Order: sequence, then C-alpha cells, then structure tokens
Amino acid sequence: MYTPALVKTLVVGVAGGSGSGKTTIAHAIVESLPVGSCALLEHDCYYKDLSHLSPEARAKVNFDHPDSLDNELFAAHLDELRAQRGIDKPQYDFATHRRASEYARVEPAPVIVVEGILVLTDPQLRARMDVKVFVDTDADIRVMRRIRRDLEHRGRSFAQVRAQYYETVRPMHLAFVEPSKRYADVIVPEGGENRVALELIGAHLRAHLTKVRHGE
Amino acid sequence: MYTPALVKTLVVGVAGGSGSGKTTIAHAIVESLPVGSCALLEHDCYYKDLSHLSPEARAKVNFDHPDSLDNELFAAHLDELRAQRGIDKPQYDFATHRRASEYARVEPAPVIVVEGILVLTDPQLRARMDVKVFVDTDADIRVMRRIRRDLEHRGRSFAQVRAQYYETVRPMHLAFVEPSKRYADVIVPEGGENRVALELIGAHLRAHLTKVRHGE
Repeated sequence: MYTPALVKTLVVGVAGGSGSGKTTIAHAIVESLPVGSCALLEHDCYYKDLSHLSPEARAKVNFDHPDSLDNELFAAHLDELRAQRGIDKPQYDFATHRRASEYARVEPAPVIVVEGILVLTDPQLRARMDVKVFVDTDADIRVMRRIRRDLEHRGRSFAQVRAQYYETVRPMHLAFVEPSKRYADVIVPEGGENRVALELIGAHLRAHLTKVRHGE
Repeated sequence: MYTPALVKTLVVGVAGGSGSGKTTIAHAIVESLPVGSCALLEHDCYYKDLSHLSPEARAKVNFDHPDSLDNELFAAHLDELRAQRGIDKPQYDFATHRRASEYARVEPAPVIVVEGILVLTDPQLRARMDVKVFVDTDADIRVMRRIRRDLEHRGRSFAQVRAQYYETVRPMHLAFVEPSKRYADVIVPEGGENRVALELIGAHLRAHLTKVRHGE
C-alpha cells in the first residue's frame, strides 16, 4: 500500500498533563486511520534504564522530570522511522524501573503519533514534529481522573496518590508540561471526548495519506 | 456545483480577542476554499442600529458588550443560510453608529464562516455552529496590534486608544471574550500566522465539500 520511496512521514505530537485525555486522543487518532498507516510511539517507553541504581535510589527518581526520559534514543528512533526504517521500541518495567529485555518492533508508516506529557518540552523532539497538539483539560478534572486511576487500577492508597501529586506531579506539570503548551499548533480542550477536534486532526492526516498514495 | 437539496451547511465560528488574529484566520479559511463554496458573516455587521439615540447617547454605548449586537437577526440569518436561502447582510456605519441603507447579498454555501470577538458568547449562536474555534494570542501582543491599528489606520491618539482599552475593551474581554474560550472545540494559538492550524481546519472543510459534491 505504501511504497517507501513515496512516503513522506508526518509526525504528530500529542502532549498534555496527567489525566488530560491525551492518551485517549492519541489512540483515537491511530484508530481513525487505516491499519498499517500509523505507528504509535509512547514517550513512556523511553524512560531511562535505572539498573545501575540501588532500589532505594530508583525510588527517589523524579519520573515527572524531563531528564528521566531518554530523548536521544527517542529522537534517533523518530529519525529512523522518518527514513523508512523500522525500530525496536523499548518496553519499560515500571515496577523495577528497568528497560525490559524484549522490544516491540515498529515498522515505518506515513503517520507517526508521538504521545506523552513531556513530548513538547524538548526542542529536538519538537523539531521532528509536523503537527503539535496540546490536550488542555482543567486541573481539577485531571486530578480526579488520576486519583481514580491510581485507586481503582494501580492499588494505591489516597495518601500515596496525594503525596506523589504534591511532591512531583504538580510541580513538574507547572514547571515543564504547562509551559510546553506554548509550542502547540493547536490546543484541544477536554481530551478524548472532543469529537470535533479529532475530526479536524483526522481530516488532515487522511488528506496526507491520500497524497502519499498518489505519490505527491 | 452545489445542488441545494444535497447541501449540508457546515458553520465554523471563529472567536478571539481584539488583535488576536481571528479575522486573518477567518479570511485565510475562506480563501483556502473554492470560490462560491464559503460565505463569511462578520458579527461586526450586526451591531444594533442606534438611530433612535442622540449622538451623545450613542457615544456612550459599550460596543464591546454582547448586548450591543443583534444576535436575533444574526441567528435568523444563519438559519436562512442553513436552509439554503440567501440573506441581506446589514452594513454598519461605525462613524454614525447606524445601519447603512444598503445591504450585502450573501448566497447560501456549503461552508459558512462566522467571525467576531463575541460569537462564542451566545448559546443560540453556538448551537448553530459545527466547529467552534477560539484564536488565543497573548494579551500584550493583542494590545500592541490594536494600538498600531488605531494609530496608523484609524487616526486615533494613543491617549484615546488607552482610555478605550481600560474603559471597555479590557473589562469586556475578561468578562465575556476570555470565558467563551470554554466553548471552543479547538484553540488556535497565534492567529493568522499559524499555518498548521489552518491546514487542519482547511482539511476538515475540504473533506466536507467533497462529501457535499458526492451527495453524501
């Protein structure tokens, strides 16, 4: 369907705070396009491997800070995909804070969706994006969603969620995530429920796929 | 090209503060579409006629308040256009604060762009829009553009611009324009220079025109 020589890769970055609905938006974009036309790269997979640290030291790392992510590898993988070469996406084990020994193969595609709270903070990542989306949801709704997720799906206590929120999530949001909205081409309120915004993004990507198919 | 029976009208609302670049965005949208496929309705044309007031009373009217606009007529005209009937768009004389005796004929089209600082404040207007865009530009840049326009093109003094800004423009922006961002489907930073956002909106509208042409 897509001849490598004809493919111009379009990279869409989807950022937004924890609980903003950016993951829902990113998945909805992928699902709205024909199978094989779109690859998804989650920034979360690119946390730095902390094998060299003691368990105590690992537990103290601020995972909401941009430095905890391996943006050099992420940028290199984006370059590979844009050059029509597949990559081995790392898998991250959040329990041990180590990179898993298995990788997930990602083949090149005409559309790459890049998703994560911090994907718009790094200039080398922004430079590789054609469309920069920031999903902007009110802080009270975001925190409600986060509490619910951590209580219902991650077995945390409210005291744990609350401590983490004040210690790292909120300060890092204000220091890094919120200011990165400045770089967005479009700001999407409400996240995954915003059908109209999804239609605009989808229409642009489908127009790109049509061009690719016609070798323009 | 467009058979009335087949036309589903898509209404795009473009709001944003004074100097945000919303007019540039609205015109760029119109110009990106085939001639005859898009009609532009400026909210500014629908200021209420103040013939019945004395010149002194007219000078005291707050033109940045939603009540100064004839939204009943505006909504009625949108309904006419959506029912594939043409309308006579009023022309407003800002020097005398009266509606001109001439009208501008607007024929129905598959896309209607509705533009003005306050188009998202009124629920009856929002209910008639398929895509609601808010153009969001920093307040300092907006005020710089406004000062320049009023000094260079409207023969005002800086003292006049400054007085009007503090008396009505800024308080009405904070009271009505800024809160209406809440209703937007997409928020466009920077206004008319935002090429990527224009491409997303344009792609959606062109996809709509293709559907209309195929009678879907």
